[in-house]
Amino acid sequence: MAKNSDISASVIKRLPRYYSYLEDLIEENVERISSKELAARMKTTASQIRQDLNCFGGFGQQGYGYNIKALHNVIGSILGVDKEYKTIMIGAGNLGKAVTSQISFEKKGCRLTAIFDIDPDIIGQTVAGIKVLSIDELEEFCKENLPSIAVLCLPKNNAFSVAKKLIDLGVKSFWNFSHFDLNLHFDNIIVENVHLGDSLLTLTYKTKNK
Amino acid sequence: MAKNSDISASVIKRLPRYYSYLEDLIEENVERISSKELAARMKTTASQIRQDLNCFGGFGQQGYGYNIKALHNVIGSILGVDKEYKTIMIGAGNLGKAVTSQISFEKKGCRLTAIFDIDPDIIGQTVAGIKVLSIDELEEFCKENLPSIAVLCLPKNNAFSVAKKLIDLGVKSFWNFSHFDLNLHFDNIIVENVHLGDSLLTLTYKTKNK
Repeated sequence: MAKNSDISASVIKRLPRYYSYLEDLIEENVERISSKELAARMKTTASQIRQDLNCFGGFGQQGYGYNIKALHNVIGSILGVDKEYKTIMIGAGNLGKAVTSQISFEKKGCRLTAIFDIDPDIIGQTVAGIKVLSIDELEEFCKENLPSIAVLCLPKNNAFSVAKKLIDLGVKSFWNFSHFDLNLHFDNIIVENVHLGDSLLTLTYKTKNK
Repeated sequence: MAKNSDISASVIKRLPRYYSYLEDLIEENVERISSKELAARMKTTASQIRQDLNCFGGFGQQGYGYNIKALHNVIGSILGVDKEYKTIMIGAGNLGKAVTSQISFEKKGCRLTAIFDIDPDIIGQTVAGIKVLSIDELEEFCKENLPSIAVLCLPKNNAFSVAKKLIDLGVKSFWNFSHFDLNLHFDNIIVENVHLGDSLLTLTYKTKNK
């Protein structure tokens, strides 16, 4: 089997999608699937799938298809779903609440351990089973608990100062919904930006050109 | 200038990102930018940018960089931001509310005209300046107003029946937050799926392999 470092960036980029399709198939109690069937589901080509998944060794047998559970396990482990990265969320407004209700953090290798907000009406609310703390408690919490990942569900204007504080406190990874370009202002951090607007614009383009 | 049909799918995929970066630059009152500077911002290469943007004709002048406003206009018009596609949203819970507060629909070529929910506590609330209607009013509304785009902010279990109804009523484009695989069940529709979980998994992977 290939080591992680042998897997190309473009394959890595597609792994979460494979992982999620395989999860759906497990839920449907499907045990094996051919590259052709998987390609039809994923709107890609069988050869692309074979090429991508061959990196992970003998999970596809000609004529038998892929062993879904085994492949799901391997990809999950490459992605790090077995990790328990301490994760905090900044912002528990509609966006923060929506994210916690949409995402099973523990299935993505993250453990949501605290949520912070600046709004007195939101502080003290229970979100995803966690009591929302005041942003004033952020520093003490981080010093004690050393979270690895921060989810930024706060407005653009507040993002710089909060991110700076978090970076000073040792947070290196950001799941960024804030529309603030962290990479432009900070080095040596890991950022995954969520650009919902890009997704809608793509739909508009496709609608226009259908 | 190239016709839309001459622009490759991979360039099209990157257009919303260019558009959004150019928008930020306009907000910062920057008038011109070189491919090198834009590449540094976007964490890509200058040659990739030159190659992509050359499709649109003479907006880059050697030594002068790109005329940001002009390029922004052209890309916006290719994407269809000047359209006013009638858009409806199904689901006005935390997710629906978060989407309306995050997204300027009219800047993406969409006009949000109605919001529907099934929950009596949510029906009648005002979200994004629009009074939330009962899902029971969906059919009549669609017959009268012929919306083009539906934003699905509802749980996976309800997505099939609502999507089927909408397709029967003539809706062809879906911005899908529901985790339900519309493409698997319906043909000849345009779907843009939002996979927040994939984004978090990518962050986990990067955190693990930093």
